[in-house]
Amino acid sequence: MANKGKTFIIAGPSGVGKGTIIDRLFKVQPDLYFSVSATTRAPRPGEQDGVHYHFLTREQFASWIEEGAFLEYAEFVGNFYGTPKRYVDEAMAAGRDVILDIEVQGAELVHRQRPETVRIFVAPPSWEELERRLLHRGTEDPEKVRGRLIRSREEFLLARYYDYLVINNDLDRAVEEIRAIMMAEHCRAGDRYDSLGSVLREPV
Amino acid sequence: MANKGKTFIIAGPSGVGKGTIIDRLFKVQPDLYFSVSATTRAPRPGEQDGVHYHFLTREQFASWIEEGAFLEYAEFVGNFYGTPKRYVDEAMAAGRDVILDIEVQGAELVHRQRPETVRIFVAPPSWEELERRLLHRGTEDPEKVRGRLIRSREEFLLARYYDYLVINNDLDRAVEEIRAIMMAEHCRAGDRYDSLGSVLREPV
Repeated sequence: MANKGKTFIIAGPSGVGKGTIIDRLFKVQPDLYFSVSATTRAPRPGEQDGVHYHFLTREQFASWIEEGAFLEYAEFVGNFYGTPKRYVDEAMAAGRDVILDIEVQGAELVHRQRPETVRIFVAPPSWEELERRLLHRGTEDPEKVRGRLIRSREEFLLARYYDYLVINNDLDRAVEEIRAIMMAEHCRAGDRYDSLGSVLREPV
Repeated sequence: MANKGKTFIIAGPSGVGKGTIIDRLFKVQPDLYFSVSATTRAPRPGEQDGVHYHFLTREQFASWIEEGAFLEYAEFVGNFYGTPKRYVDEAMAAGRDVILDIEVQGAELVHRQRPETVRIFVAPPSWEELERRLLHRGTEDPEKVRGRLIRSREEFLLARYYDYLVINNDLDRAVEEIRAIMMAEHCRAGDRYDSLGSVLREPV
């Protein structure tokens, strides 16, 4: 079996620039599959089912949970959000790499189910810089930003146990590093040795 | 402490194109340190001490062995050859990555001493192709080539336990993959987390 895709988790604090990094990855590698979450929240104007979210009723979501159809799910402000296994698996079977842009709690759940998932933590150059970026957005009041920073610094303790740590100091460099990580992971000897089939593995 | 270099072993069968790959790596990354072996063999015309080899007397070589100054060494047709630790360590301390172009037996010895060394196995696209390349060189008779091929196929059993496996089907691609591996290894979370110093690791 040749060239199955791999799943890459891109986690990191809110405001660190994951969205921008992922947009850039798609520009240079348009065959990536960006996992679309399922949710019980009502669609907002302009949101399309299957594009922005897979919109499910609470009953549907509950039965997906029952069937083990999620890689991870969580409740947030009264609504459920989850990563469906199915689309991830279809993409990988088709040889496409998958990007999961999820929170660190979700990343832990995915990694427990699938330890072969590659985890990349994106960190800011400094906490002061992250605060500056969050305040610059202007969408949240300084008190909430302060709360986010405290949580981010706690979450950073997990970064040490990730596979890779990328500092988003320079966007070009961060994207280059993530692309190198993705290419290197496809060179892993264990997988590649098995996928060579009989060409090189035939007995001497 | 910032940006220590890492050691990369590039191993693989004779004739697979390691030399060409390494030449290309140096062109794009001139700060690499290519480990120079020590040997008890006499210099050939034009060979410079410290450039082609570190030329040692048998007594010097024996005392280096005694002092544990080699990462690996072996006897070959009556002469000793070894990889001195010292230059490798100096280069890494200066932030330079080190390339060791060694045989699979040597690679095993280095990895036993230093499990953090990254091992890359370069394989041919097929054994027929490797045979063709070896015969094309014209420096060895077909009988010797046959013997090399049998040994190479046995050595390939070890490739499964390497960190990375690169197939030298297309030179540009092989070089690109090795560069990606080197960049990705510098993004390893464990090392990087520790090297961030107090900037991101200060207590919350």
